[in-house]
Amino acid sequence: MPVEYSSVLVRFGEIGIKSKQTRRRMAKMLADRIRTALKEHEVPFEKVRNEYGRIFIETASAEEAAQIASRVFGVVSTSPVVETSADTKDILDAGEQLALSKFKKGRSFAVEGRRFGDHDYSSQQIRGLLGERLLEGHPELELTVDLSNPEQSIYLEVRAERTYIFTETIKGVGGMPTGTQGKVVCTISTGLDSPIAAFKIMKRGTIPVFVYYDNSPHSNEKCAERAIGQAQLLANYIYDYDVKLYIVPHWPDLEEAIDKGPVKMTCIFCKRNMMKMAREIAILEKADAIVTGEIIGEQASQTTANLRVLDEAVSDFPILRPLAGDDKVDIEHLAQEIGTYEFAKDGIACCDLAPKYPALAAQVEDAVCAEEMMDASILQTELKNARVIVLRKGSQ
Amino acid sequence: MPVEYSSVLVRFGEIGIKSKQTRRRMAKMLADRIRTALKEHEVPFEKVRNEYGRIFIETASAEEAAQIASRVFGVVSTSPVVETSADTKDILDAGEQLALSKFKKGRSFAVEGRRFGDHDYSSQQIRGLLGERLLEGHPELELTVDLSNPEQSIYLEVRAERTYIFTETIKGVGGMPTGTQGKVVCTISTGLDSPIAAFKIMKRGTIPVFVYYDNSPHSNEKCAERAIGQAQLLANYIYDYDVKLYIVPHWPDLEEAIDKGPVKMTCIFCKRNMMKMAREIAILEKADAIVTGEIIGEQASQTTANLRVLDEAVSDFPILRPLAGDDKVDIEHLAQEIGTYEFAKDGIACCDLAPKYPALAAQVEDAVCAEEMMDASILQTELKNARVIVLRKGSQ
Repeated sequence: MPVEYSSVLVRFGEIGIKSKQTRRRMAKMLADRIRTALKEHEVPFEKVRNEYGRIFIETASAEEAAQIASRVFGVVSTSPVVETSADTKDILDAGEQLALSKFKKGRSFAVEGRRFGDHDYSSQQIRGLLGERLLEGHPELELTVDLSNPEQSIYLEVRAERTYIFTETIKGVGGMPTGTQGKVVCTISTGLDSPIAAFKIMKRGTIPVFVYYDNSPHSNEKCAERAIGQAQLLANYIYDYDVKLYIVPHWPDLEEAIDKGPVKMTCIFCKRNMMKMAREIAILEKADAIVTGEIIGEQASQTTANLRVLDEAVSDFPILRPLAGDDKVDIEHLAQEIGTYEFAKDGIACCDLAPKYPALAAQVEDAVCAEEMMDASILQTELKNARVIVLRKGSQ
Repeated sequence: MPVEYSSVLVRFGEIGIKSKQTRRRMAKMLADRIRTALKEHEVPFEKVRNEYGRIFIETASAEEAAQIASRVFGVVSTSPVVETSADTKDILDAGEQLALSKFKKGRSFAVEGRRFGDHDYSSQQIRGLLGERLLEGHPELELTVDLSNPEQSIYLEVRAERTYIFTETIKGVGGMPTGTQGKVVCTISTGLDSPIAAFKIMKRGTIPVFVYYDNSPHSNEKCAERAIGQAQLLANYIYDYDVKLYIVPHWPDLEEAIDKGPVKMTCIFCKRNMMKMAREIAILEKADAIVTGEIIGEQASQTTANLRVLDEAVSDFPILRPLAGDDKVDIEHLAQEIGTYEFAKDGIACCDLAPKYPALAAQVEDAVCAEEMMDASILQTELKNARVIVLRKGSQ
């Protein structure tokens, strides 16, 4: 018999350690984001309410709602729950019914849980009673008790007048609710790293503005399409806010750099130009920072010496590099988890201009000096020719 | 009977995908770091050699050496190995002996492995032969074969004339060899985050210069001691290079900021001053970047808006924030893994000056304007009074 869940218990993490005022504000924002996510995915619900430092979604589609809510930034975990009163009889009846529908035969089990408020039983007593009911009332299940390392568990969360009972906890995406931070300009290529960098910073509550620099004709024609696909996948994690993607034609400034600069510094000029245009977009969009996917030492342009030269291109916005200290293998795992790996795995080349012997320790002076001979107005023209795609529409 | 390992097989990851020349240079650096680590921990060895895109440590203390090498930056994993010829008889004899000393009775097993070069057997054949030998020659072990999900495995790595046999793989710390990147100034507090930020950037091959800002008398007297302990623990991961810790008296500039600036911006002034002094140290030490432990949204001073104000304090060095997109819980796990958690867990307060209502969205202009009334020479005096501790001496 399928169990009748009545709601979803949503747990949030870091919000809980904020001051009371901040905590309330952020928990309310998280509830708003969850409401929008449920509506967008057409999961019917009665109410999303903040209570006891948790969020509860009242819904008959609890399993589906628990999945959707687990992918909302700020959510640490979710559980579809059976809700009942705090009376012993109700708890035991509901607990028995849930266990019967979820527990597997012949396995070890435990009743776990917590109790808050005044009741005529202790937490240990109510857990013991439910355990007894399952053992003695259902010999056909051949259950054994194992409190330290059970194969299956049932949890009781007893509050003043209500009890929430569940067996399943879905890991959430974590982070902080979207909108608790400002806007950030996320530069994305078609590779593996930059979408993950964007994801990590988005997860901390920021609102992304994506920028993709289109190298055509010096890139595979599928590249722009793939960049749009990646940006859309990321944007789908953002609820209630507009998300835009700028596609900036990049070949004219690259051509200028190749014509007038030393070839070994091509990637440096390319990236400095990307930074400069990201800065313009940050000003236009009132963003606070620029995000890139650089990992120290991963590519020749990403030595600490070269990062210094790249950084110098923008002095009035922080350049956030959330992957600077990560290993490639960790990034691959995260890309598989969130789905961007699918776009990058074919390894199509989106730039064929990288020099054979790139500069490993460029100097700021050399870059600035060479750039003085290049036509800076090209960057402005490129920005004017940028295509802007609205990936998401939000109410805020 | 204890098995007689003859060497350790060391695997490295990202180095392997570099160009041939870079790969050789970095693999040689990694071997140098491992040699120094073994000497420092007084593990005797005959030789550390680069071969087949791997590093081999020839040593009679293979189990100890495998542990030490696994903690050297750049190492993905290590295995103590039995080394023998590529002859069938030798492989089966050595494999049988290793399995007898390591395999547990009544469990499932698999023989896994790879073969490179010309031999009169295929990889599958030699694995099959060893499997048969164990099954038929040792019924007392009650082994069963399970190739897809074995409880224990023995691995054969057959090269042209040598075979390496092992049962155990120790996870390495990962990253890139120390010295493949430049120096970085790592600002460390006594909290959980900044040592992990330093660790992540160190792991990518950089050489750290630590800076601790001492708030006394506005901090617990144990704070400086703890900062030294944390820095020493981190420095112990660095082989062959000097590592220094600057302890900078910080109260005079803080006092000036509190006297002359709006109280809600105290943390902003404090951190901007830290950045400015880190920049001076970066110039002095010829470093390429500054590293901080900021996480977006973790503290009031770490909103994206405030990061922009902090970043503005230094325009000619990148400020690397490797934790910007991480969740607190991930950082806690890593701190437990590397040992810095022990220092931070008591949560003693190392600053009692944070305002009750801090600015959440400070403006660059406000900070710069207020700082014009403060005496900038205090920072120079503090730097002159800094205590410099040499945590590690290296030959490079």
